[in-house]
Amino acid sequence: MRLTVPIALRWSDLDAYAHVNNARMLSLLEEARIQAFWRADDREAPLTDAVGATTAVLDARPGADTFSLIARQEVEYLLPIPYHRQPVEVELWIGHLGGASLDVCYEVYSPAGLEPRVLYTRAATTIVLTDAATGRPRRISPTERAAWEPYLGEPLRFRRR
Amino acid sequence: MRLTVPIALRWSDLDAYAHVNNARMLSLLEEARIQAFWRADDREAPLTDAVGATTAVLDARPGADTFSLIARQEVEYLLPIPYHRQPVEVELWIGHLGGASLDVCYEVYSPAGLEPRVLYTRAATTIVLTDAATGRPRRISPTERAAWEPYLGEPLRFRRR
Amino acid sequence: MRLTVPIALRWSDLDAYAHVNNARMLSLLEEARIQAFWRADDREAPLTDAVGATTAVLDARPGADTFSLIARQEVEYLLPIPYHRQPVEVELWIGHLGGASLDVCYEVYSPAGLEPRVLYTRAATTIVLTDAATGRPRRISPTERAAWEPYLGEPLRFRRR
Amino acid sequence: MRLTVPIALRWSDLDAYAHVNNARMLSLLEEARIQAFWRADDREAPLTDAVGATTAVLDARPGADTFSLIARQEVEYLLPIPYHRQPVEVELWIGHLGGASLDVCYEVYSPAGLEPRVLYTRAATTIVLTDAATGRPRRISPTERAAWEPYLGEPLRFRRR
Repeated sequence: MRLTVPIALRWSDLDAYAHVNNARMLSLLEEARIQAFWRADDREAPLTDAVGATTAVLDARPGADTFSLIARQEVEYLLPIPYHRQPVEVELWIGHLGGASLDVCYEVYSPAGLEPRVLYTRAATTIVLTDAATGRPRRISPTERAAWEPYLGEPLRFRRR
Repeated sequence: MRLTVPIALRWSDLDAYAHVNNARMLSLLEEARIQAFWRADDREAPLTDAVGATTAVLDARPGADTFSLIARQEVEYLLPIPYHRQPVEVELWIGHLGGASLDVCYEVYSPAGLEPRVLYTRAATTIVLTDAATGRPRRISPTERAAWEPYLGEPLRFRRR
Repeated sequence: MRLTVPIALRWSDLDAYAHVNNARMLSLLEEARIQAFWRADDREAPLTDAVGATTAVLDARPGADTFSLIARQEVEYLLPIPYHRQPVEVELWIGHLGGASLDVCYEVYSPAGLEPRVLYTRAATTIVLTDAATGRPRRISPTERAAWEPYLGEPLRFRRR
Repeated sequence: MRLTVPIALRWSDLDAYAHVNNARMLSLLEEARIQAFWRADDREAPLTDAVGATTAVLDARPGADTFSLIARQEVEYLLPIPYHRQPVEVELWIGHLGGASLDVCYEVYSPAGLEPRVLYTRAATTIVLTDAATGRPRRISPTERAAWEPYLGEPLRFRRR
């Protein structure tokens, strides 16, 4: 199963080629990942999927006991992205669920409703859950594992490796 | 009359104090301003106000005949902004409508639905419409003026000047 | 007396108009201000002025006892800034030194050695020194005051107010 | 042979974990790559290596005939990077030189003079030279190839694939 997260572009995401900057793309993926996996503030609604479940169970916000450190990223830029007023759609799933780490896979598509739908970017991120106090990796909890397992799927196969 | 534009924060808007960075605030204002005033792509829906009108009539996108150059900005930061999953609300109006320039005023509030509502930031931007070919100021067109006049209001009075 | 801080531009500072973005300008000013006023790590050399003195006595880095909060900013953009490989020159001085706050004034010039020298931007920032634990303003210390007083000068007069 | 490019960090590169943000790292790599490979403005000094040669022969600045499009990136984050006042050192070399594309490899180290020297990040970028008018790949010119061949080396082997 995949989660779809709408992510609003900003004019300042464009670089002097008038396309979304390659580095900025990773901020968009980061935002989709946080919406999907980080626990919301009690007053705020977390992202839920089609059946009303939420994957947003990880408490890695500043001040929490866990840091979610990025160990590795891989990105394929298939087509340049122009400024869109409507949010682009980021589809996410988990390509690997380890003891203390997970691989998040992404496909970034044109905004909902624009035809034809365009696949702009494919990417994967390896995250290591880290104890904020000791700096050491910490195990994925049963609650986290239960929330995330439905989204486990085939890892992305990159074309250009 | 004021326009209200919801603007999604990003985790990467925070700086090492875990608050929205002071410079980044201007990117949020820029985004609200573009949503409000720039003409949308034909395939995309512009922002409309409560009566279904749109102020988004300025064609200043890259490649268009007009640049909207920023001549001046003033910002008062009243309270630090933490990460919010829901968009903050930017209220906009026009404090001055000149021959070739306009002053946009803003108030940035906490996300809709969070109580009590908090006013985080107040700001104003002077924009000069510039002919992309000559680099010279160009006059506000009758269409633009007609679309914007309903939003003309009292200029913001800054407290700390 | 003024301090001159060279600040390296980045390609990603440009927006789709191929000029340094208006919001990003404040990140450049922030960087100049931090180089000038924040205490360096013990292993690193602080910025010094022509007589070998340093103004970099404020410990406001993350984890320190003080936050330097931005209360207000005002910027006049005189000319668009293209990408420069050499650093632009930011001249700084203090326009007002209060009990718990100070006003930093800036003029941003073209890189050293390029003729004619161009003044791109003028700006001022009001900073409030804040106790990190209580969130309350705290007084400027005698050490800080002594280090900063030589750079006290006339506040910037903005043209367009 | 490798090129070493000093890249200044900014306070705004840090995220709320007080480390250089993972996405921002790619802006730092981009900046090192541009310093190394893009042709300087006539009035500005390009980066030169130990023997006084320059690799900065590619004219891909906005308005030039070539776009340098990013097709792929891979990054390994070995250690978090704190704020450094002195520039970090980015070592670059070319891992593959194709007909219309090249792979740039990077290692990011702590600032010169800090002991012990720390390797923070390893990365590779695939760049496709593209004709700005047609959007099609264009061949690497003899001048470009001659300037870049001395920097051809072993492609980076990533550990975590």
